[in-house]
Amino acid sequence: MKDAYVHGYDLRENIRLQDQASTLVDLLHSDTLYPGGSRVLEAGCGVGAQTVTLAANSPDAIFTSIDISEESVNAARRAAEAAGISNVDFRQGDIFHLPFGPGSFDHIFLCFVLEHLPRPVEALEILKGYLKGGGTITVIEGDHGSAYFYPDSEFARRAIDCQVELQRRSGGNANIGRELYPLLKSAGYEDIRVSPRMVYVDSSRPGLVEGFTKKTFTAMIEGVRETALAAGITDQGAFDRGIRDLYRTAEAEGVFCYTFFKAVAVKA
Amino acid sequence: MKDAYVHGYDLRENIRLQDQASTLVDLLHSDTLYPGGSRVLEAGCGVGAQTVTLAANSPDAIFTSIDISEESVNAARRAAEAAGISNVDFRQGDIFHLPFGPGSFDHIFLCFVLEHLPRPVEALEILKGYLKGGGTITVIEGDHGSAYFYPDSEFARRAIDCQVELQRRSGGNANIGRELYPLLKSAGYEDIRVSPRMVYVDSSRPGLVEGFTKKTFTAMIEGVRETALAAGITDQGAFDRGIRDLYRTAEAEGVFCYTFFKAVAVKA
Repeated sequence: MKDAYVHGYDLRENIRLQDQASTLVDLLHSDTLYPGGSRVLEAGCGVGAQTVTLAANSPDAIFTSIDISEESVNAARRAAEAAGISNVDFRQGDIFHLPFGPGSFDHIFLCFVLEHLPRPVEALEILKGYLKGGGTITVIEGDHGSAYFYPDSEFARRAIDCQVELQRRSGGNANIGRELYPLLKSAGYEDIRVSPRMVYVDSSRPGLVEGFTKKTFTAMIEGVRETALAAGITDQGAFDRGIRDLYRTAEAEGVFCYTFFKAVAVKA
Repeated sequence: MKDAYVHGYDLRENIRLQDQASTLVDLLHSDTLYPGGSRVLEAGCGVGAQTVTLAANSPDAIFTSIDISEESVNAARRAAEAAGISNVDFRQGDIFHLPFGPGSFDHIFLCFVLEHLPRPVEALEILKGYLKGGGTITVIEGDHGSAYFYPDSEFARRAIDCQVELQRRSGGNANIGRELYPLLKSAGYEDIRVSPRMVYVDSSRPGLVEGFTKKTFTAMIEGVRETALAAGITDQGAFDRGIRDLYRTAEAEGVFCYTFFKAVAVKA
Protein backbone atom coordinates (compact mmCIF):
# COMPACT_ATOMS: atom_id res chain seq x y z
CA MET A 1 0.00 0.00 0.00
CA LYS A 2 3.05 2.21 -0.19
CA ASP A 3 1.75 3.51 -3.51
CA ALA A 4 -1.46 4.82 -2.04
CA TYR A 5 0.55 6.59 0.62
CA VAL A 6 2.85 8.14 -1.93
CA HIS A 7 -0.10 9.21 -4.02
CA GLY A 8 -1.59 10.82 -0.95
CA TYR A 9 1.47 13.03 -1.11
CA ASP A 10 0.78 13.95 -4.73
CA LEU A 11 -2.03 16.27 -3.67
CA ARG A 12 0.30 18.07 -1.33
CA GLU A 13 3.07 18.43 -3.88
CA ASN A 14 0.92 19.41 -6.78
CA ILE A 15 -0.95 22.10 -4.96
CA ARG A 16 2.36 23.80 -4.47
CA LEU A 17 3.67 23.24 -7.94
CA GLN A 18 0.89 23.81 -10.43
CA ASP A 19 0.19 26.99 -12.37
CA GLN A 20 -2.57 28.13 -10.07
CA ALA A 21 -0.58 27.23 -6.99
CA SER A 22 -0.70 30.76 -5.68
CA THR A 23 -4.51 30.72 -5.60
CA LEU A 24 -4.64 27.39 -3.79
CA VAL A 25 -1.77 28.25 -1.47
CA ASP A 26 -3.53 31.48 -0.55
CA LEU A 27 -6.77 29.60 0.00
CA LEU A 28 -5.08 27.36 2.57
CA HIS A 29 -2.34 29.55 4.05
CA SER A 30 -3.29 33.22 3.87
CA ASP A 31 -4.70 33.38 7.41
CA THR A 32 -1.87 31.49 9.11
CA LEU A 33 0.57 34.09 10.41
CA TYR A 34 2.67 33.51 13.54
CA PRO A 35 4.10 36.32 15.70
CA GLY A 36 7.82 37.07 15.65
CA GLY A 37 9.77 34.95 18.10
CA SER A 38 7.07 32.31 18.46
CA ARG A 39 8.19 28.70 18.24
CA VAL A 40 6.19 26.64 15.75
CA LEU A 41 6.30 22.88 15.14
CA GLU A 42 5.35 21.71 11.65
CA ALA A 43 4.51 18.05 12.14
CA GLY A 44 4.84 16.02 8.95
CA CYS A 45 6.52 18.46 6.57
CA GLY A 46 7.06 15.95 3.75
CA VAL A 47 9.33 17.46 1.12
CA GLY A 48 8.62 20.96 2.38
CA ALA A 49 5.83 21.91 -0.01
CA GLN A 50 3.93 23.76 2.73
CA THR A 51 6.99 24.67 4.76
CA VAL A 52 8.25 27.18 2.25
CA THR A 53 4.97 29.13 2.29
CA LEU A 54 4.47 28.73 6.02
CA ALA A 55 7.91 30.04 6.93
CA ALA A 56 7.86 32.81 4.32
CA ASN A 57 4.51 34.09 5.66
CA SER A 58 5.87 34.30 9.22
CA PRO A 59 9.51 35.28 8.65
CA ASP A 60 10.17 36.16 12.31
CA ALA A 61 8.71 32.95 13.77
CA ILE A 62 11.06 30.04 14.49
CA PHE A 63 9.98 26.79 12.84
CA THR A 64 10.87 23.19 13.55
CA SER A 65 9.69 20.96 10.70
CA ILE A 66 9.78 17.22 11.15
CA ASP A 67 8.92 14.26 8.98
CA ILE A 68 9.22 10.52 9.54
CA SER A 69 11.14 10.13 6.26
CA GLU A 70 14.79 11.18 6.38
CA GLU A 71 14.73 11.42 2.59
CA SER A 72 11.76 13.80 2.65
CA VAL A 73 13.36 15.94 5.35
CA ASN A 74 16.48 16.29 3.25
CA ALA A 75 14.42 17.30 0.24
CA ALA A 76 12.52 19.79 2.39
CA ARG A 77 15.77 21.29 3.65
CA ARG A 78 16.99 21.74 0.08
CA ALA A 79 13.64 23.28 -0.98
CA ALA A 80 13.83 25.77 1.88
CA GLU A 81 17.43 26.68 1.04
CA ALA A 82 16.50 27.17 -2.61
CA ALA A 83 13.68 29.49 -1.53
CA GLY A 84 16.00 31.48 0.72
CA ILE A 85 14.17 30.35 3.86
CA SER A 86 16.38 30.46 6.96
CA ASN A 87 13.92 30.27 9.89
CA VAL A 88 13.29 26.51 9.78
CA ASP A 89 15.14 23.75 11.62
CA PHE A 90 14.47 20.46 9.78
CA ARG A 91 14.68 17.16 11.67
CA GLN A 92 13.75 13.56 11.05
CA GLY A 93 11.19 12.40 13.61
CA ASP A 94 8.07 10.36 14.26
CA ILE A 95 5.02 12.33 15.45
CA PHE A 96 4.37 9.61 18.01
CA HIS A 97 7.92 9.79 19.47
CA LEU A 98 9.37 13.28 19.19
CA PRO A 99 12.43 14.39 21.14
CA PHE A 100 10.83 17.54 22.60
CA GLY A 101 9.89 18.39 26.16
CA PRO A 102 6.35 19.26 27.26
CA GLY A 103 5.26 22.76 26.24
CA SER A 104 8.18 23.25 23.82
CA PHE A 105 6.10 25.07 21.21
CA ASP A 106 3.77 28.06 21.02
CA HIS A 107 1.97 26.68 17.96
CA ILE A 108 1.69 23.51 15.90
CA PHE A 109 0.84 23.19 12.20
CA LEU A 110 -0.19 20.04 10.27
CA CYS A 111 -1.20 19.90 6.62
CA PHE A 112 -2.24 16.68 4.81
CA VAL A 113 -0.85 14.53 7.63
CA LEU A 114 -3.77 13.19 9.69
CA GLU A 115 -5.25 11.60 6.55
CA HIS A 116 -2.36 9.11 6.59
CA LEU A 117 -2.46 8.17 10.29
CA PRO A 118 -4.31 5.13 11.65
CA ARG A 119 -4.76 6.87 15.05
CA PRO A 120 -5.29 10.58 14.35
CA VAL A 121 -6.79 11.39 17.77
CA GLU A 122 -3.81 9.84 19.53
CA ALA A 123 -1.46 11.90 17.34
CA LEU A 124 -3.37 15.08 18.22
CA GLU A 125 -3.23 14.21 21.93
CA ILE A 126 0.51 13.59 21.80
CA LEU A 127 1.10 16.83 19.91
CA LYS A 128 -0.94 18.69 22.54
CA GLY A 129 1.72 17.71 25.06
CA TYR A 130 4.32 19.71 23.12
CA LEU A 131 2.14 22.83 23.11
CA LYS A 132 2.25 25.56 25.74
CA GLY A 133 -1.05 26.36 27.43
CA GLY A 134 -2.93 28.86 25.26
CA GLY A 135 -1.04 27.66 22.18
CA THR A 136 -2.82 26.80 18.96
CA ILE A 137 -2.88 23.88 16.60
CA THR A 138 -3.73 24.42 12.93
CA VAL A 139 -4.83 21.42 10.87
CA ILE A 140 -5.53 21.35 7.11
CA GLU A 141 -6.96 18.28 5.40
CA GLY A 142 -8.74 17.46 2.15
CA ASP A 143 -11.87 15.33 1.85
CA HIS A 144 -12.35 13.20 -1.25
CA GLY A 145 -16.03 12.76 -0.42
CA SER A 146 -16.40 16.50 -0.97
CA ALA A 147 -15.62 16.05 -4.67
CA TYR A 148 -18.60 16.42 -6.98
CA PHE A 149 -18.79 17.58 -10.53
CA TYR A 150 -20.70 18.12 -13.73
CA PRO A 151 -21.31 16.06 -15.74
CA ASP A 152 -21.90 13.70 -12.85
CA SER A 153 -20.66 10.13 -13.37
CA GLU A 154 -21.05 6.98 -11.32
CA PHE A 155 -17.82 5.71 -12.89
CA ALA A 156 -15.90 8.80 -11.83
CA ARG A 157 -17.23 8.47 -8.30
CA ARG A 158 -16.20 4.81 -8.22
CA ALA A 159 -12.70 5.69 -9.44
CA ILE A 160 -12.36 8.21 -6.61
CA ASP A 161 -13.64 5.56 -4.20
CA CYS A 162 -10.69 3.38 -5.25
CA GLN A 163 -8.28 5.98 -3.88
CA VAL A 164 -10.40 6.27 -0.72
CA GLU A 165 -10.40 2.49 -0.27
CA LEU A 166 -6.64 2.15 -0.86
CA GLN A 167 -5.93 4.90 1.64
CA ARG A 168 -8.25 3.17 4.12
CA ARG A 169 -6.40 -0.12 3.64
CA SER A 170 -3.09 1.62 4.35
CA GLY A 171 -4.58 2.89 7.61
CA GLY A 172 -5.54 6.37 6.47
CA ASN A 173 -8.75 8.27 5.77
CA ALA A 174 -9.15 10.27 2.56
CA ASN A 175 -12.45 11.72 3.81
CA ILE A 176 -11.01 13.09 7.04
CA GLY A 177 -11.56 16.80 6.32
CA ARG A 178 -15.16 16.80 7.51
CA GLU A 179 -14.06 15.15 10.78
CA LEU A 180 -11.64 17.81 12.03
CA TYR A 181 -14.08 19.20 14.59
CA PRO A 182 -14.85 15.87 16.33
CA LEU A 183 -11.20 14.76 16.09
CA LEU A 184 -9.88 17.88 17.79
CA LYS A 185 -12.68 17.71 20.35
CA SER A 186 -11.87 14.08 21.15
CA ALA A 187 -8.22 15.04 21.59
CA GLY A 188 -9.18 17.61 24.20
CA TYR A 189 -8.61 20.87 22.35
CA GLU A 190 -10.84 23.88 22.97
CA ASP A 191 -12.20 26.84 21.03
CA ILE A 192 -12.18 24.74 17.85
CA ARG A 193 -12.97 26.72 14.73
CA VAL A 194 -13.28 24.89 11.41
CA SER A 195 -13.50 26.73 8.11
CA PRO A 196 -14.04 24.94 4.83
CA ARG A 197 -12.07 26.15 1.82
CA MET A 198 -13.96 25.16 -1.28
CA VAL A 199 -12.27 25.01 -4.67
CA TYR A 200 -14.85 25.67 -7.41
CA VAL A 201 -13.67 25.21 -10.98
CA ASP A 202 -15.48 26.00 -14.22
CA SER A 203 -14.07 26.89 -17.62
CA SER A 204 -13.95 30.58 -16.76
CA ARG A 205 -11.03 29.62 -14.48
CA PRO A 206 -8.63 27.90 -16.93
CA GLY A 207 -5.70 27.92 -14.51
CA LEU A 208 -7.67 25.88 -11.99
CA VAL A 209 -9.07 23.59 -14.70
CA GLU A 210 -5.51 22.74 -15.68
CA GLY A 211 -3.81 23.04 -12.30
CA PHE A 212 -6.42 21.55 -10.00
CA THR A 213 -9.06 19.48 -11.83
CA LYS A 214 -6.66 17.85 -14.29
CA LYS A 215 -3.11 17.95 -12.97
CA THR A 216 -3.83 17.67 -9.26
CA PHE A 217 -7.06 15.82 -8.53
CA THR A 218 -7.62 13.67 -11.61
CA ALA A 219 -3.92 12.90 -11.96
CA MET A 220 -3.88 11.76 -8.32
CA ILE A 221 -6.81 9.38 -8.89
CA GLU A 222 -5.29 8.19 -12.16
CA GLY A 223 -2.10 7.47 -10.22
CA VAL A 224 -3.70 4.67 -8.19
CA ARG A 225 -4.76 2.76 -11.32
CA GLU A 226 -2.25 -0.10 -11.11
CA THR A 227 -2.57 -0.46 -7.35
CA ALA A 228 -6.37 -0.47 -7.51
CA LEU A 229 -6.39 -3.07 -10.30
CA ALA A 230 -3.85 -5.22 -8.46
CA ALA A 231 -5.96 -4.97 -5.30
CA GLY A 232 -8.98 -6.14 -7.27
CA ILE A 233 -11.18 -3.27 -6.12
CA THR A 234 -12.04 -2.19 -9.66
CA ASP A 235 -11.73 -3.42 -13.20
CA GLN A 236 -9.83 -1.78 -16.01
CA GLY A 237 -12.87 -0.75 -18.04
CA ALA A 238 -14.71 0.86 -15.15
CA PHE A 239 -11.65 2.65 -13.81
CA ASP A 240 -10.57 4.01 -17.17
CA ARG A 241 -14.07 5.24 -17.91
CA GLY A 242 -14.09 6.95 -14.49
CA ILE A 243 -10.85 8.75 -15.35
CA ARG A 244 -12.21 9.78 -18.76
CA ASP A 245 -15.31 11.12 -17.03
CA LEU A 246 -13.20 13.10 -14.56
CA TYR A 247 -11.35 14.69 -17.48
CA ARG A 248 -14.74 15.55 -19.01
CA THR A 249 -15.43 17.76 -15.99
CA ALA A 250 -12.45 19.82 -17.17
CA GLU A 251 -14.00 20.48 -20.57
CA ALA A 252 -15.83 23.67 -21.59
CA GLU A 253 -19.16 22.71 -20.01
CA GLY A 254 -17.66 20.98 -16.99
CA VAL A 255 -17.58 21.95 -13.33
CA PHE A 256 -15.48 20.49 -10.52
CA CYS A 257 -15.85 21.08 -6.77
CA TYR A 258 -13.57 20.03 -3.91
CA THR A 259 -13.29 21.23 -0.34
CA PHE A 260 -10.33 21.48 2.02
CA PHE A 261 -10.98 21.94 5.72
CA LYS A 262 -8.86 24.11 7.97
CA ALA A 263 -9.20 24.00 11.74
CA VAL A 264 -7.61 26.09 14.45
CA ALA A 265 -7.94 25.02 18.08
CA VAL A 266 -6.44 25.97 21.40
CA LYS A 267 -4.76 23.99 24.17
CA ALA A 268 -6.40 25.20 27.36
CA MET B 1 -45.50 14.10 -7.65
CA LYS B 2 -47.05 17.25 -6.31
CA ASP B 3 -45.61 16.37 -2.90
CA ALA B 4 -42.05 16.37 -4.12
CA TYR B 5 -42.62 19.76 -5.68
CA VAL B 6 -44.14 21.13 -2.49
CA HIS B 7 -41.24 19.76 -0.47
CA GLY B 8 -38.88 21.46 -2.85
CA TYR B 9 -40.44 24.65 -1.53
CA ASP B 10 -39.74 23.68 2.08
CA LEU B 11 -36.09 24.51 1.68
CA ARG B 12 -36.97 27.96 0.45
CA GLU B 13 -39.46 28.65 3.23
CA ASN B 14 -37.40 27.25 6.03
CA ILE B 15 -34.27 29.13 5.16
CA ARG B 16 -36.24 32.28 5.70
CA LEU B 17 -38.02 31.14 8.81
CA GLN B 18 -35.57 29.34 11.04
CA ASP B 19 -33.56 30.75 13.93
CA GLN B 20 -30.38 31.14 11.97
CA ALA B 21 -32.23 32.56 9.02
CA SER B 22 -30.27 35.79 9.12
CA THR B 23 -26.99 33.91 8.65
CA LEU B 24 -28.33 31.92 5.72
CA VAL B 25 -30.15 34.87 4.20
CA ASP B 26 -26.93 36.90 4.40
CA LEU B 27 -25.01 34.03 2.85
CA LEU B 28 -27.29 34.08 -0.18
CA HIS B 29 -28.44 37.71 -0.42
CA SER B 30 -25.82 40.05 1.02
CA ASP B 31 -24.14 40.82 -2.31
CA THR B 32 -27.35 41.38 -4.29
CA LEU B 33 -28.03 45.12 -4.27
CA TYR B 34 -29.80 46.87 -7.14
CA PRO B 35 -29.43 50.60 -7.92
CA GLY B 36 -32.27 53.01 -7.19
CA GLY B 37 -34.75 53.25 -10.03
CA SER B 38 -33.69 49.99 -11.65
CA ARG B 39 -36.45 47.62 -12.71
CA VAL B 40 -36.01 44.08 -11.42
CA LEU B 41 -38.01 40.94 -12.26
CA GLU B 42 -38.13 38.25 -9.61
CA ALA B 43 -39.16 35.14 -11.53
CA GLY B 44 -40.80 32.51 -9.33
CA CYS B 45 -41.28 34.35 -6.04
CA GLY B 46 -43.29 31.59 -4.34
CA VAL B 47 -44.79 32.90 -1.11
CA GLY B 48 -42.30 35.76 -1.02
CA ALA B 49 -39.68 34.21 1.26
CA GLN B 50 -36.84 35.77 -0.76
CA THR B 51 -38.82 38.77 -1.97
CA VAL B 52 -38.93 40.41 1.44
CA THR B 53 -35.12 40.33 1.79
CA LEU B 54 -34.51 41.17 -1.85
CA ALA B 55 -36.75 44.25 -1.82
CA ALA B 56 -35.59 45.40 1.62
CA ASN B 57 -31.93 45.26 0.53
CA SER B 58 -32.63 47.44 -2.53
CA PRO B 59 -35.35 49.79 -1.26
CA ASP B 60 -35.11 52.18 -4.21
CA ALA B 61 -35.27 49.53 -6.93
CA ILE B 62 -38.66 48.65 -8.45
CA PHE B 63 -39.50 44.95 -8.29
CA THR B 64 -41.98 42.85 -10.22
CA SER B 65 -42.36 39.45 -8.56
CA ILE B 66 -44.23 36.72 -10.38
CA ASP B 67 -45.17 33.15 -9.59
CA ILE B 68 -47.19 30.58 -11.48
CA SER B 69 -49.40 29.98 -8.42
CA GLU B 70 -52.05 32.65 -7.75
CA GLU B 71 -52.26 31.38 -4.17
CA SER B 72 -48.52 31.79 -3.64
CA VAL B 73 -48.56 35.26 -5.16
CA ASN B 74 -51.32 36.31 -2.76
CA ALA B 75 -49.34 34.93 0.19
CA ALA B 76 -46.24 36.78 -1.06
CA ARG B 77 -48.19 40.02 -1.31
CA ARG B 78 -49.39 39.62 2.29
CA ALA B 79 -45.85 38.79 3.49
CA ALA B 80 -44.48 41.90 1.82
CA GLU B 81 -47.23 44.07 3.31
CA ALA B 82 -46.57 42.60 6.77
CA ALA B 83 -42.88 43.45 6.37
CA GLY B 84 -43.65 47.00 5.28
CA ILE B 85 -42.31 46.39 1.77
CA SER B 86 -43.83 48.74 -0.82
CA ASN B 87 -41.49 48.50 -3.83
CA VAL B 88 -42.83 45.21 -5.23
CA ASP B 89 -45.57 44.65 -7.79
CA PHE B 90 -46.85 41.07 -7.39
CA ARG B 91 -48.43 39.27 -10.36
CA GLN B 92 -49.46 35.77 -11.26
CA GLY B 93 -47.57 34.56 -14.32
CA ASP B 94 -45.79 31.66 -16.02
CA ILE B 95 -42.06 32.17 -16.67
CA PHE B 96 -42.57 30.68 -20.15
CA HIS B 97 -45.39 33.13 -21.05
CA LEU B 98 -44.96 36.48 -19.31
CA PRO B 99 -46.84 39.61 -20.37
CA PHE B 100 -43.76 41.82 -20.69
CA GLY B 101 -42.17 43.36 -23.75
CA PRO B 102 -38.55 42.71 -24.79
CA GLY B 103 -36.02 44.54 -22.63
CA SER B 104 -38.54 45.43 -19.92
CA PHE B 105 -36.12 44.87 -17.04
CA ASP B 106 -32.67 45.98 -15.97
CA HIS B 107 -32.11 42.88 -13.89
CA ILE B 108 -33.64 39.46 -13.21
CA PHE B 109 -33.45 37.40 -10.01
CA LEU B 110 -34.33 33.70 -9.55
CA CYS B 111 -33.90 31.70 -6.34
CA PHE B 112 -34.77 27.96 -6.00
CA VAL B 113 -36.73 28.04 -9.28
CA LEU B 114 -34.65 26.33 -11.98
CA GLU B 115 -34.48 23.16 -9.85
CA HIS B 116 -38.22 22.66 -10.54
CA LEU B 117 -38.20 23.27 -14.29
CA PRO B 118 -37.93 20.49 -16.89
CA ARG B 119 -36.36 22.93 -19.39
CA PRO B 120 -34.13 25.30 -17.41
CA VAL B 121 -32.08 26.49 -20.40
CA GLU B 122 -35.25 27.42 -22.29
CA ALA B 123 -36.47 29.36 -19.25
CA LEU B 124 -33.17 31.24 -19.06
CA GLU B 125 -33.34 32.02 -22.79
CA ILE B 126 -36.89 33.34 -22.52
CA LEU B 127 -35.99 35.45 -19.49
CA LYS B 128 -33.04 36.89 -21.42
CA GLY B 129 -35.57 38.38 -23.82
CA TYR B 130 -37.03 40.51 -21.02
CA LEU B 131 -33.59 41.87 -20.06
CA LYS B 132 -32.07 45.06 -21.42
CA GLY B 133 -28.65 44.69 -23.02
CA GLY B 134 -26.04 44.92 -20.26
CA GLY B 135 -28.59 43.76 -17.70
CA THR B 136 -27.81 40.98 -15.24
CA ILE B 137 -29.45 37.76 -14.19
CA THR B 138 -28.82 36.37 -10.70
CA VAL B 139 -29.58 32.71 -10.06
CA ILE B 140 -29.40 30.88 -6.71
CA GLU B 141 -29.84 27.11 -6.42
CA GLY B 142 -29.06 24.37 -3.93
CA ASP B 143 -27.44 21.04 -4.79
CA HIS B 144 -28.39 17.97 -2.78
CA GLY B 145 -25.36 16.12 -4.13
CA SER B 146 -23.25 18.67 -2.23
CA ALA B 147 -24.52 17.28 1.08
CA TYR B 148 -22.00 15.22 3.03
CA PHE B 149 -21.64 14.69 6.73
CA TYR B 150 -20.05 12.97 9.68
CA PRO B 151 -20.77 10.30 10.69
CA ASP B 152 -21.12 9.25 7.07
CA SER B 153 -23.99 6.88 6.31
CA GLU B 154 -24.98 4.98 3.21
CA PHE B 155 -28.59 4.99 4.49
CA ALA B 156 -28.59 8.77 4.90
CA ARG B 157 -27.23 9.18 1.39
CA ARG B 158 -29.92 6.85 0.04
CA ALA B 159 -32.65 8.82 1.85
CA ILE B 160 -31.39 12.01 0.24
CA ASP B 161 -31.35 10.22 -3.11
CA CYS B 162 -35.10 9.57 -2.66
CA GLN B 163 -35.74 13.33 -2.68
CA VAL B 164 -33.44 13.70 -5.70
CA GLU B 165 -35.25 10.89 -7.54
CA LEU B 166 -38.73 12.28 -6.74
CA GLN B 167 -37.72 15.72 -7.94
CA ARG B 168 -36.29 14.16 -11.11
CA ARG B 169 -39.57 12.31 -11.72
CA SER B 170 -41.49 15.57 -11.38
CA GLY B 171 -39.24 17.08 -14.07
CA GLY B 172 -36.83 18.89 -11.80
CA ASN B 173 -33.20 18.53 -10.75
CA ALA B 174 -32.20 18.69 -7.08
CA ASN B 175 -28.50 18.67 -8.03
CA ILE B 176 -28.74 21.69 -10.34
CA GLY B 177 -26.52 24.03 -8.30
CA ARG B 178 -23.27 22.72 -9.78
CA GLU B 179 -24.69 23.21 -13.30
CA LEU B 180 -25.34 26.95 -13.19
CA TYR B 181 -22.28 27.80 -15.27
CA PRO B 182 -23.07 25.46 -18.21
CA LEU B 183 -26.80 26.32 -18.05
CA LEU B 184 -26.21 30.06 -18.28
CA LYS B 185 -23.60 29.52 -20.99
CA SER B 186 -26.01 27.37 -23.03
CA ALA B 187 -28.66 30.08 -22.69
CA GLY B 188 -26.28 32.63 -24.21
CA TYR B 189 -25.36 34.75 -21.21
CA GLU B 190 -21.89 36.23 -20.87
CA ASP B 191 -19.46 37.15 -18.11
CA ILE B 192 -20.85 34.30 -15.98
CA ARG B 193 -19.51 34.30 -12.44
CA VAL B 194 -20.50 31.45 -10.13
CA SER B 195 -19.75 31.54 -6.42
CA PRO B 196 -20.51 28.62 -4.12
CA ARG B 197 -21.94 29.41 -0.69
CA MET B 198 -21.11 26.53 1.60
CA VAL B 199 -23.00 25.96 4.83
CA TYR B 200 -20.73 24.18 7.32
CA VAL B 201 -22.35 23.04 10.56
CA ASP B 202 -20.74 21.54 13.65
CA SER B 203 -21.87 21.65 17.26
CA SER B 204 -20.07 24.92 17.90
CA ARG B 205 -22.82 26.48 15.74
CA PRO B 206 -25.99 25.38 17.57
CA GLY B 207 -28.26 27.75 15.67
CA LEU B 208 -27.30 26.14 12.37
CA VAL B 209 -27.51 22.62 13.86
CA GLU B 210 -31.10 23.34 14.80
CA GLY B 211 -32.07 25.69 12.00
CA PHE B 212 -30.31 24.12 9.04
CA THR B 213 -29.24 20.50 9.66
CA LYS B 214 -32.37 19.47 11.56
CA LYS B 215 -35.24 21.81 10.75
CA THR B 216 -34.36 22.64 7.15
CA PHE B 217 -32.43 19.86 5.45
CA THR B 218 -33.32 16.73 7.40
CA ALA B 219 -36.94 17.83 7.83
CA MET B 220 -37.17 18.32 4.07
CA ILE B 221 -35.86 14.80 3.37
CA GLU B 222 -38.10 13.38 6.09
CA GLY B 223 -41.00 15.13 4.37
CA VAL B 224 -40.80 12.93 1.26
CA ARG B 225 -41.14 9.72 3.32
CA GLU B 226 -44.70 8.78 2.30
CA THR B 227 -44.20 9.78 -1.32
CA ALA B 228 -40.96 7.83 -1.57
CA LEU B 229 -42.50 4.73 -0.01
CA ALA B 230 -45.57 4.99 -2.25
CA ALA B 231 -43.31 5.34 -5.29
CA GLY B 232 -41.45 2.17 -4.25
CA ILE B 233 -38.02 3.80 -4.43
CA THR B 234 -37.13 2.86 -0.85
CA ASP B 235 -38.37 0.71 1.98
CA GLN B 236 -39.49 1.87 5.38
CA GLY B 237 -36.56 0.41 7.33
CA ALA B 238 -33.88 1.85 5.09
CA PHE B 239 -35.50 5.28 4.84
CA ASP B 240 -36.12 5.61 8.56
CA ARG B 241 -32.57 4.57 9.34
CA GLY B 242 -31.35 7.18 6.85
CA ILE B 243 -33.34 9.88 8.65
CA ARG B 244 -32.01 8.73 12.04
CA ASP B 245 -28.49 8.89 10.62
CA LEU B 246 -29.09 12.41 9.32
CA TYR B 247 -30.21 13.48 12.81
CA ARG B 248 -27.02 11.90 14.18
CA THR B 249 -25.03 14.43 12.16
CA ALA B 250 -26.71 17.08 14.34
CA GLU B 251 -25.39 15.55 17.57
CA ALA B 252 -22.36 16.77 19.52
CA GLU B 253 -19.77 14.96 17.35
CA GLY B 254 -21.64 15.48 14.08
CA VAL B 255 -20.83 17.66 11.08
CA PHE B 256 -23.07 18.62 8.15
CA CYS B 257 -22.06 20.32 4.90
CA TYR B 258 -24.25 21.71 2.11
CA THR B 259 -23.54 24.14 -0.70
CA PHE B 260 -25.72 26.68 -2.45
CA PHE B 261 -24.55 28.12 -5.76
CA LYS B 262 -25.07 31.73 -6.79
CA ALA B 263 -24.44 32.90 -10.33
CA VAL B 264 -24.50 36.35 -11.87
CA ALA B 265 -24.36 36.72 -15.64
CA VAL B 266 -24.83 39.46 -18.19
CA LYS B 267 -26.96 39.79 -21.31
CA ALA B 268 -24.60 41.14 -23.95
